[in-house]
Amino acid sequence: MASDLGAAPEAGPPDGKMAAMAPFATDELEPSFERTRIRSIVTAVDVAALAGKKMVVGGWVRTGREQGKGSFAFLELNDGSCLANLQVIVDAAVHPLAQLTPTGTCVVIEGVLKRPPEGVKQSLELRAERILEVGPCDPGKYPLPKTRLTLEFLRDWVHLRARTNTISAVARIRDELAYATHTFFRENGFRYIHTPIITTSDCEGAGEMFQVTTLFSDAEKVEKELKENPPPSESDIESAKLIVKEKGEAVAHLKSIKASKSEITASVTELTKAKENLSRLEERFKLKPGIPQKDGKTDYALDFFGRQAFLTVSGQLQVETYACALGNVYTFGPTFRAEHSHTSRHLAEFWMVEPEIAFANLEDDMNYAESYVKFLCQWLLDHSLEDMEFMAKNYDKTAIERLKLVASSPFVRISYTKAVELLENVTDKKFENPVSWGIDLASEHERYLTEVIFKKPVIVYNYPKGIKAFYMRLNDDGKTVAAMDVLVPKVGELIGGSQREERLDVLQQRILDSGLPIEPYEWYLELRRYGTVKHCGFGLGFERMILFATGLDNIRDVIPFPRYPGRADL
Amino acid sequence: MASDLGAAPEAGPPDGKMAAMAPFATDELEPSFERTRIRSIVTAVDVAALAGKKMVVGGWVRTGREQGKGSFAFLELNDGSCLANLQVIVDAAVHPLAQLTPTGTCVVIEGVLKRPPEGVKQSLELRAERILEVGPCDPGKYPLPKTRLTLEFLRDWVHLRARTNTISAVARIRDELAYATHTFFRENGFRYIHTPIITTSDCEGAGEMFQVTTLFSDAEKVEKELKENPPPSESDIESAKLIVKEKGEAVAHLKSIKASKSEITASVTELTKAKENLSRLEERFKLKPGIPQKDGKTDYALDFFGRQAFLTVSGQLQVETYACALGNVYTFGPTFRAEHSHTSRHLAEFWMVEPEIAFANLEDDMNYAESYVKFLCQWLLDHSLEDMEFMAKNYDKTAIERLKLVASSPFVRISYTKAVELLENVTDKKFENPVSWGIDLASEHERYLTEVIFKKPVIVYNYPKGIKAFYMRLNDDGKTVAAMDVLVPKVGELIGGSQREERLDVLQQRILDSGLPIEPYEWYLELRRYGTVKHCGFGLGFERMILFATGLDNIRDVIPFPRYPGRADL
Repeated sequence: MASDLGAAPEAGPPDGKMAAMAPFATDELEPSFERTRIRSIVTAVDVAALAGKKMVVGGWVRTGREQGKGSFAFLELNDGSCLANLQVIVDAAVHPLAQLTPTGTCVVIEGVLKRPPEGVKQSLELRAERILEVGPCDPGKYPLPKTRLTLEFLRDWVHLRARTNTISAVARIRDELAYATHTFFRENGFRYIHTPIITTSDCEGAGEMFQVTTLFSDAEKVEKELKENPPPSESDIESAKLIVKEKGEAVAHLKSIKASKSEITASVTELTKAKENLSRLEERFKLKPGIPQKDGKTDYALDFFGRQAFLTVSGQLQVETYACALGNVYTFGPTFRAEHSHTSRHLAEFWMVEPEIAFANLEDDMNYAESYVKFLCQWLLDHSLEDMEFMAKNYDKTAIERLKLVASSPFVRISYTKAVELLENVTDKKFENPVSWGIDLASEHERYLTEVIFKKPVIVYNYPKGIKAFYMRLNDDGKTVAAMDVLVPKVGELIGGSQREERLDVLQQRILDSGLPIEPYEWYLELRRYGTVKHCGFGLGFERMILFATGLDNIRDVIPFPRYPGRADL
Repeated sequence: MASDLGAAPEAGPPDGKMAAMAPFATDELEPSFERTRIRSIVTAVDVAALAGKKMVVGGWVRTGREQGKGSFAFLELNDGSCLANLQVIVDAAVHPLAQLTPTGTCVVIEGVLKRPPEGVKQSLELRAERILEVGPCDPGKYPLPKTRLTLEFLRDWVHLRARTNTISAVARIRDELAYATHTFFRENGFRYIHTPIITTSDCEGAGEMFQVTTLFSDAEKVEKELKENPPPSESDIESAKLIVKEKGEAVAHLKSIKASKSEITASVTELTKAKENLSRLEERFKLKPGIPQKDGKTDYALDFFGRQAFLTVSGQLQVETYACALGNVYTFGPTFRAEHSHTSRHLAEFWMVEPEIAFANLEDDMNYAESYVKFLCQWLLDHSLEDMEFMAKNYDKTAIERLKLVASSPFVRISYTKAVELLENVTDKKFENPVSWGIDLASEHERYLTEVIFKKPVIVYNYPKGIKAFYMRLNDDGKTVAAMDVLVPKVGELIGGSQREERLDVLQQRILDSGLPIEPYEWYLELRRYGTVKHCGFGLGFERMILFATGLDNIRDVIPFPRYPGRADL
């Protein structure tokens, strides 16, 4: 494990300093080497203190080249702890160079840290003294031999693409945003609640949901069973019935002639056995190949949960049960949509952050949403500057400025009515979707508000009730609900939230008006029936936040294993 | 939102101090009150500084009783921020008392903090001056009116049970363990990777998996479509074919008589239309109700992902791809088993923590596992003492001692061979499962080792290869693999891990020896083919850790929404 060499303060997590370990109990195990991670070398503040130190590093060769007519080689070594590579110099006397230079080769090297010659940019390099381990890589076969590959190409290699600069930087930024999320909510007194993935509720009453089932594998088992052990025929059943009848008659006969108790008992035992055999046969006779049916429909009573079950589209309704008990809570987990969207903004599986706050109204909701987004932006500036600079250089020149802008400027807050007024008066642009009060704002409208009119994040609130979900609190005007969306440059809507309807009668009516049945929401209504509380919450699409931060365009590049129609690799 | 009153240092997260908020843009919104959370009152260190302060609190009445012939009432108010209630005194002149005293009522109260009379245990109480809001609760209907209810009873009320002492304490402990997990791995240089929930790989080649599908909903759509718009009959197809033939002949005829270009073009257009109509009819003719079949089997090519897809049983294989790029990574997310287990230790949906470490061997694996478990135990002692004391008092007297023991004593480390030797020599107990080299240790053996023989955590390593998964590294003896299990008192196995097989040829052979096909593991083999690296990892069942910590017996009580055969509420 790594030793701590005093990484620069702007760097992210420490580099694996371990507490003193328990002494080792036996000698059956191979002792480990003390590995130093590359980040603690390349971000070290006190370079002079490190120069001359002997250490072990492990990593993958990004580029390797022989020099001096094959007398030595330069290796650019990366171990994923940071974007920067460590330059390693290996003499031909230390190890056959051709084994080390192919891109993708894994090496563990013991060497001494040296300052490079004056005038060279690199701060420290490693002179190899021993090559401890080599994981070779055939350059003729390695799918990612080049250093520059398109993101689209890399999507076909999800198991290897984390070895590239872009995808590893995204992974580190994603990790930082996740930790920042937990830290923000903890600092604000929220508890993390694991809402269920498998659900029998449908949050919106609308979303296309994936179904979770064991009916196919159960059917396969039945088919296999029936093949190995064919089911009884009708005549098998008839014979078994006949035997039951005969045995029954025998018992009756013995009783009528007042036979001995032991004779009768023996006869009854035989009858019982015959009955058991019959019911076993009848049970197996009912076994049918294929998905079980009842009244012409799939019989979900025989599915794993005894009913239809789905993958969650949102943890909101469930996390509300905890908000109405613990006050400030949030959920952060995967959510699912079975939509056949092939766009660069949709995934079938994506992560959502959903806080829920009791004793709070729409204003609190906006305050928390704004503070949270600011916190995330500032966190990346504080902890991911190297990776963000890489993104700015290679994908979006404005990425860092955008983070600074959002972290520092108050968000504009305007009502939906005001937003529509502003958009209706736009003369320098023709929208594809015409604007009028009552429409759902399209991405082009949202981006125009935040990018052109205000040039900073905008919170739009109090939307028409007709375009929003039933659980959003009805305002006194009877026309709008206490909903709010946070719009940011580059992606448009980043957060959607609302104050929840806490009045039992209003909520019931809103469910009915939405054309939904009451029964599945009884538990949700009970939160209002017993000790109801004003509360609010919002949802942030985690991948959307990463797109916003990095400036990348395709959501498939900001989640490790993207799932979309026709594709679920690994 | 809450103001910060300087909570005692052993308390968990701060209580919701917010950064300065953006000024409010319009007057359309209702301003919020400044709520103080109960924990910052009951855990305040400087009681004298708080006495006399006016503040607003919100919470649910745990018990309420009228006193002094109905002239005032005591309310025990809880807001979920901590176990302790705040005592509130309300004069009858302030509000009708009968509305406030039923258990479950939600109230928001403005009042003044007072020291209670000398000699009373309670430190601070609130004298109500105004009742700002009431969410009533009918005591005749409320399902949880009593303060003491069995955990089994509460499992039928998952949407309300977080309002009880036990379940809210579990929620806070669970939150602390989650944050401790992220903190431990961050401090050790690990990155959090979101492995996929929907997967086309099977980690063990064995587990019962849930299937994820849209075939049922697609079939429903087809059936609905066919009902509204019946499919063509065979004679419809025949007529359409005839028309195509006739139109074709017409075109040929016009060409043969050298008709005008416009006549021929018009005729060709008619032919094209006729052909389009035919292919549309043929397409619809193929529509069949029910699940699509091909060669007598379900046609998964028509499912959402174009193939069979499942819910993950472990993120290990996928997270290995990131370990082989970023070095130190972990995943923490939901996993699934479709096993028909009705025990107190199994769930269909549960959370797993799975770190994976490159450039590391079995010894490193044990070191990290031991450090992690110790860290979790110490964290609870530092951050959850009040909730842990409640658990110790009500469920398991030894719970706190157990945490202290595990946090402070080095874990015993013995080989599987040694463990079997020890168990074979046990004379004071007869095991249900006889012990001999080669068996998989049962829970009774594991608990005997950790609870009776060593009386502290035990790591057993180097298991027979026949009982372990193919990806575990084969030791030089050819008989054992570099696997390790961490056993702890109360639950037995808490962690299972291994060094992974990094040698391509050995891994291929192990897959074949396990009776598995090579093809689905090609991507996994490629991690070894290109720059292979020694690496290891382990998995900790998060709910098992909570059972271990709290001393509770049933896993259904330590996850907010338990899923098991026949049951998936909400």
